[in-house]
Amino acid sequence: MAFEFTWVRRVEFTETDMAGIVHFSMFFQYMEQCEHAFYRSLGYSVVNRAEEGNAGLPRISAHMDYKKPFHFEDEMEIQLFVKEKRTRSLVYLFLFRKAGEETIRARGQLAVVSVAGHPATGMRAVALPEHMTETIEQAPTETLAAFEDSTN
Amino acid sequence: MAFEFTWVRRVEFTETDMAGIVHFSMFFQYMEQCEHAFYRSLGYSVVNRAEEGNAGLPRISAHMDYKKPFHFEDEMEIQLFVKEKRTRSLVYLFLFRKAGEETIRARGQLAVVSVAGHPATGMRAVALPEHMTETIEQAPTETLAAFEDSTN
Amino acid sequence: MAFEFTWVRRVEFTETDMAGIVHFSMFFQYMEQCEHAFYRSLGYSVVNRAEEGNAGLPRISAHMDYKKPFHFEDEMEIQLFVKEKRTRSLVYLFLFRKAGEETIRARGQLAVVSVAGHPATGMRAVALPEHMTETIEQAPTETLAAFEDSTN
Amino acid sequence: MAFEFTWVRRVEFTETDMAGIVHFSMFFQYMEQCEHAFYRSLGYSVVNRAEEGNAGLPRISAHMDYKKPFHFEDEMEIQLFVKEKRTRSLVYLFLFRKAGEETIRARGQLAVVSVAGHPATGMRAVALPEHMTETIEQAPTETLAAFEDSTN
Repeated sequence: MAFEFTWVRRVEFTETDMAGIVHFSMFFQYMEQCEHAFYRSLGYSVVNRAEEGNAGLPRISAHMDYKKPFHFEDEMEIQLFVKEKRTRSLVYLFLFRKAGEETIRARGQLAVVSVAGHPATGMRAVALPEHMTETIEQAPTETLAAFEDSTN
Repeated sequence: MAFEFTWVRRVEFTETDMAGIVHFSMFFQYMEQCEHAFYRSLGYSVVNRAEEGNAGLPRISAHMDYKKPFHFEDEMEIQLFVKEKRTRSLVYLFLFRKAGEETIRARGQLAVVSVAGHPATGMRAVALPEHMTETIEQAPTETLAAFEDSTN
Repeated sequence: MAFEFTWVRRVEFTETDMAGIVHFSMFFQYMEQCEHAFYRSLGYSVVNRAEEGNAGLPRISAHMDYKKPFHFEDEMEIQLFVKEKRTRSLVYLFLFRKAGEETIRARGQLAVVSVAGHPATGMRAVALPEHMTETIEQAPTETLAAFEDSTN
Repeated sequence: MAFEFTWVRRVEFTETDMAGIVHFSMFFQYMEQCEHAFYRSLGYSVVNRAEEGNAGLPRISAHMDYKKPFHFEDEMEIQLFVKEKRTRSLVYLFLFRKAGEETIRARGQLAVVSVAGHPATGMRAVALPEHMTETIEQAPTETLAAFEDSTN
């Protein structure tokens, strides 16, 4: 059972904007990329679920706080925590650091829901599939508490 | 003095993903595009400020709640409200509807701060420039209240 | 029968990179967006074809020559010409100008093929559907000749 | 002296479109990302040059032929060859394969020029900087010939 995952990626040129830093919208792509790498680390894909008649894990909400920018070719270390595990949904927390640094440069949150059906024709929330409930658990309160503090 | 702005755009093919709907990260680009169109409607550009020695308006935080997806070629109507106007910062609210519909499909918030300096070398918060304080005002409480209700 | 189409769009902040200009990869999105607007101007969508059991119009090749950059908030005027119309494929030419200027800043080409089937499971080239063959024609030789010259 | 480089990356969800495959415009980002990784493998960055008063390496032209699509989470192996090395410019060739497969799924070309100045204020072509001329060489004719054949 996993409640934490760390993923490292490098900032690409196209991810910067004319202000010379990573565009704020990119961090939402990074959160999802880290989430998908988390699933792969557990032996499955976010998309395998489609074969079971599900539409994957649509996003309910997304949030990001920006503290310090990233630049071209920075190695970005993204730490994922399972903040909430419910029957039909998961809430993830993400910390963004430059690799090798303590400072948190951005801090995000992503809530996803398990659904059946297809986005084009109507979906309804259903229980998370077994391969997820059996491999993902909520982070301990102490872990999340330290995590909360570390960003203040 | 303006506290509201509406902008319409069409969903492009590249903005969809393999789930057949607009990717959730795109909405953060749309918020900013609408914000920049708001400035143009007031006679200036978010980037003109660079000439005054400012680094523009970095984003402090961004948030989005997703209720119903958008599809390829949908006409998307984005309504911006000035939720908070402070000395050095602004908070915007955004409602996303399909053009001609009442239903709110997504609802976002973007907080921006006025800074001097450059993101690469260090920035400090400064008062919003005059051309902004003279043209932008906070939305009336009643307007925002109705707006809050409309999304519940 | 149409062989030419002009579409205007404004450069968004996210489309720029740290060099302060529009990233070269964006022009391929612009070509496709202009192509799709061309189809809408003729009364249909590139995606309607899916309902007929087709997978749309996959791209065979794409090319761009860059002569002069575009910047944030530039109004970009994109002119499309039908360079070749064959039984199963179309080749488009695109000229990129800043609105109101004569200078061609970029010049692109896009070849697309009509297919049946689905990209995931196998596709085969088929004749262009009637609603396309009845509305799109190849540009006259003289038009294309002038067009060739204008970019040298 | 290097004339070849191989780089592996995984396809992310946002890089797919509603056709379920990687969008054709993404391959131009991949070419550049591979090129930048090539420079890092040689001990420098495409952007270090800015400190020497150069504006980097603007793209003159870009081309891609599409033969077979890529899907979500495919491991993409990109092979770069130095096709031409001239005093002020370089032409790269790129082969895209699914990792572990022989089949070439896409084949691209990118021409870049060395410039002094800034894109916003005017640039002129200058000789490639020493750290590039001393580390990059043109691929042998036989290598390129085999490479040409392999894509037919």
